[in-house]
Amino acid sequence: MTDFAKTKSMFHLPDGVIYLDGNSLGPLPKSACDHVSNMMRNEWGAQLITGWNKAGWLELSTDLGDRIARLIGAKPGHVILGDTLSLKVYQALAAALDLNPGRKVVLSDNGNFPSDLYIAQGLLTSLGQGHELRVVDPAAVAANITDDVAVLMLTEVGYRSGRLHDMNALTKLAHSRGVVTLWDLAHSTGAIPVDLAGCDADFAVGCSYKYLNGGPGAPAFIYVAPRHIDHVRPALSGWLGHEAPFDFDLEYRPGAGIERMRIGTPPIIALRALEKAMDIWDLVDMNDLRARAIELSGQFIAGVEKHCPALTLVSPRDGQKRGSQVAFAFENGFAAMQAVIDRGVIGDFRAPDIMRFGITPLYIDEADITAAVAIICDVIRNSLWDNAKYKKRGLVT
Amino acid sequence: MTDFAKTKSMFHLPDGVIYLDGNSLGPLPKSACDHVSNMMRNEWGAQLITGWNKAGWLELSTDLGDRIARLIGAKPGHVILGDTLSLKVYQALAAALDLNPGRKVVLSDNGNFPSDLYIAQGLLTSLGQGHELRVVDPAAVAANITDDVAVLMLTEVGYRSGRLHDMNALTKLAHSRGVVTLWDLAHSTGAIPVDLAGCDADFAVGCSYKYLNGGPGAPAFIYVAPRHIDHVRPALSGWLGHEAPFDFDLEYRPGAGIERMRIGTPPIIALRALEKAMDIWDLVDMNDLRARAIELSGQFIAGVEKHCPALTLVSPRDGQKRGSQVAFAFENGFAAMQAVIDRGVIGDFRAPDIMRFGITPLYIDEADITAAVAIICDVIRNSLWDNAKYKKRGLVT
Repeated sequence: MTDFAKTKSMFHLPDGVIYLDGNSLGPLPKSACDHVSNMMRNEWGAQLITGWNKAGWLELSTDLGDRIARLIGAKPGHVILGDTLSLKVYQALAAALDLNPGRKVVLSDNGNFPSDLYIAQGLLTSLGQGHELRVVDPAAVAANITDDVAVLMLTEVGYRSGRLHDMNALTKLAHSRGVVTLWDLAHSTGAIPVDLAGCDADFAVGCSYKYLNGGPGAPAFIYVAPRHIDHVRPALSGWLGHEAPFDFDLEYRPGAGIERMRIGTPPIIALRALEKAMDIWDLVDMNDLRARAIELSGQFIAGVEKHCPALTLVSPRDGQKRGSQVAFAFENGFAAMQAVIDRGVIGDFRAPDIMRFGITPLYIDEADITAAVAIICDVIRNSLWDNAKYKKRGLVT
Repeated sequence: MTDFAKTKSMFHLPDGVIYLDGNSLGPLPKSACDHVSNMMRNEWGAQLITGWNKAGWLELSTDLGDRIARLIGAKPGHVILGDTLSLKVYQALAAALDLNPGRKVVLSDNGNFPSDLYIAQGLLTSLGQGHELRVVDPAAVAANITDDVAVLMLTEVGYRSGRLHDMNALTKLAHSRGVVTLWDLAHSTGAIPVDLAGCDADFAVGCSYKYLNGGPGAPAFIYVAPRHIDHVRPALSGWLGHEAPFDFDLEYRPGAGIERMRIGTPPIIALRALEKAMDIWDLVDMNDLRARAIELSGQFIAGVEKHCPALTLVSPRDGQKRGSQVAFAFENGFAAMQAVIDRGVIGDFRAPDIMRFGITPLYIDEADITAAVAIICDVIRNSLWDNAKYKKRGLVT
């Protein structure tokens, strides 16, 4: 059984703050700071260029990929870290389209994170081959998996409502119609158990700064199914994805397996920070985490609904059908969220009217939920917000 | 006059090491470690998600871009940090090709860093429009700037020999034939004065982990000429390059100016490390640095040639025609370089036979050059290397 009191003790959590925004940016693992300092002084500072060999910097991208793999149902060797999530979407979508050259439709939904859609728009325009990005309602995805679709590109857990797609069913349906699948796990990784291999997913991508707690701008990851990895063509063919980068050949030849999804020089300081977050994840069983998240989310929803009828639940009520976040619609949501934050409960806001709260059992417990509900409901019931003060909106996901 | 004794004192330089590989990975600025620790504890740790607003994380990419701009002859607002150099090449090349849709040739040279060529190969294949990557000898570039060339893509300073292209002359020649220019400044930025605006260059890219001393995997940068920036189409259209990322619209609309070259979430820890490197650069006049680099390089070449006739200079002898590195060819160069490194003089090796030394006045002085020459020449003259021990080659640029 995972010891969540222990995992909570491993994070730096500021006094007076209840942090319900780990779905945007996870908190600092206590040991990350010294670990990064050590890397800077004793690797970069002392070893200089030889750190690439002596400190194993190049292997960090795959070592950490293997540790994330366990959380998302992948085998070691099929996940690699690097770059940003948007770039990993680009890599994966380009590779997925290559596998289905006769088809011209990318199917997604309007609950997808906008960057995924933007990246698809940019790629399809660049290709100039008449591809269409078909964006439907999340509930209409299954019905739109038709024989003209090349790639089904979905974010498993909707970033606003937390609505959960059925990855297994949709992947099977897609495959039955010759459609390649690309799953964005931004709000899944470290939030819910994922079984990429079991679902037979083709491509997946995710980030490490949300539930994984890797720090602001921590690198993204990509998964490629083993049946594809040795014959996909990397569209972003950078030198570290080359079969033999240090031969400095003039012609690109893709590297073996997941190595070909490398592009440029990996961000070593950030990868070292992420290592300490993954040390905590190594203590966690994802089924334990899921059970606890549903329990805590249930407590949160019940508390808010009891005391703040003005807030309307927009997340699925059934815990099995949502990720690890809870969203309420409220007309004055932006200003109200600022007031809640000023009282020490940090959630975030998503246009047009959504107050979003991440429920992260790694460092949130029943007492936190009780205290957060009391503050949120005090703010809402007593109208302790100031609409006039907050004209401009801007918080990073 | 720049005080190079002072700049040298601002770096952590290990005892017994003379570091002639700042052209691969610059050393640690002494203040970077505490600055990063402070960011981790007091921004990420204490402010959590609110750090994006309170600590100004999003502005770091442009604030640092403005500071780099001074070193490369660009105005504030025309340079932005992010991602890796290979990705910035991709962004710039895609945008450059868009400006010349009627032409199908990308011209480069075989002294270019291979990743630039790989990225071009990948992009041109993806476009599927019959583009050709034409790779000529560096000396033949000018003669090959013909009316069918869409983009001239060059690295100003060759990564092996340090040979310097004439950016001003080649850009003017290119423009006279309707060719768009893309300059890779990997071995120029912080090495030699660059005048992008004065040369009227169209696009430029560079990295911050070499001469700039930003740390392993520090982010890259891109420059777009002001006459292009408001109408180039970003091929890598990530959400932070959107005109209004926090509106979460479903359609991509490029942001204003250089902001559209953002892709995903910036690597905040790495950007904070780079800030401290840029504090040192703020003390440096690039003309002072250039004069001193030529002086020190001359001393280095004269010493090596006098005492080690077995080494053949492959860098241009005229200091004005090379960057800030010096390369010698030597048959047993790989093993010899290892032996030199074991004696505390860190340079690096580039296939097939090049011993490469970066001359970086920020932290290298005459005494260092004298000591380095003595060690290198002792190793070479007394054959103090072991070919049998070094079968496998692999050092990161």
